Amino acid sequence: MRNSRPAEAPRAGRRSGGGDTRETVLAAAKRQFSALGYDRTTLRSVAAEAGVNQKLVGYFFRSKQALFVAATELPFDPAPVMRAVLDGDPQGRGERLARFIVDVLENPEAGTRLIAMVRAAASEPDAADLLRDLLRKRIWGPAAALLGDRHSEGAVNLVAVQLLGLVMARYVIRAQPLASLPPDAIVTLLAPLLQQQLSEKSHGTS
Amino acid sequence: MRNSRPAEAPRAGRRSGGGDTRETVLAAAKRQFSALGYDRTTLRSVAAEAGVNQKLVGYFFRSKQALFVAATELPFDPAPVMRAVLDGDPQGRGERLARFIVDVLENPEAGTRLIAMVRAAASEPDAADLLRDLLRKRIWGPAAALLGDRHSEGAVNLVAVQLLGLVMARYVIRAQPLASLPPDAIVTLLAPLLQQQLSEKSHGTS
Repeated sequence: MRNSRPAEAPRAGRRSGGGDTRETVLAAAKRQFSALGYDRTTLRSVAAEAGVNQKLVGYFFRSKQALFVAATELPFDPAPVMRAVLDGDPQGRGERLARFIVDVLENPEAGTRLIAMVRAAASEPDAADLLRDLLRKRIWGPAAALLGDRHSEGAVNLVAVQLLGLVMARYVIRAQPLASLPPDAIVTLLAPLLQQQLSEKSHGTS
Repeated sequence: MRNSRPAEAPRAGRRSGGGDTRETVLAAAKRQFSALGYDRTTLRSVAAEAGVNQKLVGYFFRSKQALFVAATELPFDPAPVMRAVLDGDPQGRGERLARFIVDVLENPEAGTRLIAMVRAAASEPDAADLLRDLLRKRIWGPAAALLGDRHSEGAVNLVAVQLLGLVMARYVIRAQPLASLPPDAIVTLLAPLLQQQLSEKSHGTS
């Protein structure tokens, strides 16, 4: 059912410098998603700004959702966050991560962006692939390396389950009372669940 | 930003029997989503089968995603499932629920349908509202009543976080190694997390 991701450069080879073209499209997309927002940015408007045929944008990115994920940076730099969460009292890891992620999600700009990335990934398989690659490279891989035992990948997976579940239940589907709780109450609910995955001894869940 | 859901009958009142019309549209949508699948069903094709103007379908349901959620039944009857999960050894609740949900999600027909409902909800706020109402009425409300103490709504929320997170991480974003683990391993990972919410004493998380 799913097509494989297109290669970096178009097959036809009529345009040279496919990599540059892709970067030009991506730069136009970044500018437009940021300036116009998701709804008013279209494959057509990005193509026009980049000076390429709309089909070429579709060739590189398949869908607006995938283009959005490709053009959108994480709204935080994960490396210092991971250090701040994992350093210090090991019993406080769950609470520090819960506090950080709730602060991001409640921030109007950063939270909107992160939730939009999850929604785009849920809408389109190509966007899901791009988000997975981004999360693996920037967060999951380094986090598993920092946790550093043979169960760490499973622990990182379970943290992802909790955080994606929070985004879906509170911000997308808006289950009650979860969607109406103040941020501090979410931290209180989430911290012990995350702590189980992040404590030094217990992330051998399987 | 969000419009409120349309009322049951069109404002204009040119058509009488709006409720009947809505049911006719819904019946056509059920048949088409089931026979043609999600991608080949359109607001236009549903309108044609129901013998109404496509704008009226849009009026009732806003988007194809919302129409899909409205036309789709849960792929299981929640009442006996909740009894089977909560009856018997209280220490086995997490494992029974994990086993049940993994069996549903791994079933080609039922799992595809459930995952498609979550994806539709992530794509469109109207679909999210419909899915929330369905889940609240059919699952979350009755489950909280069965658990029956003052923390039960919070417990049901946290179960929803786990299960929505599983759908997103394993089936939508396909985080590794989670997406490649055999179903039994998922049950093993998930059971203790669910058990914490469902055990008789411990669902006072907050």
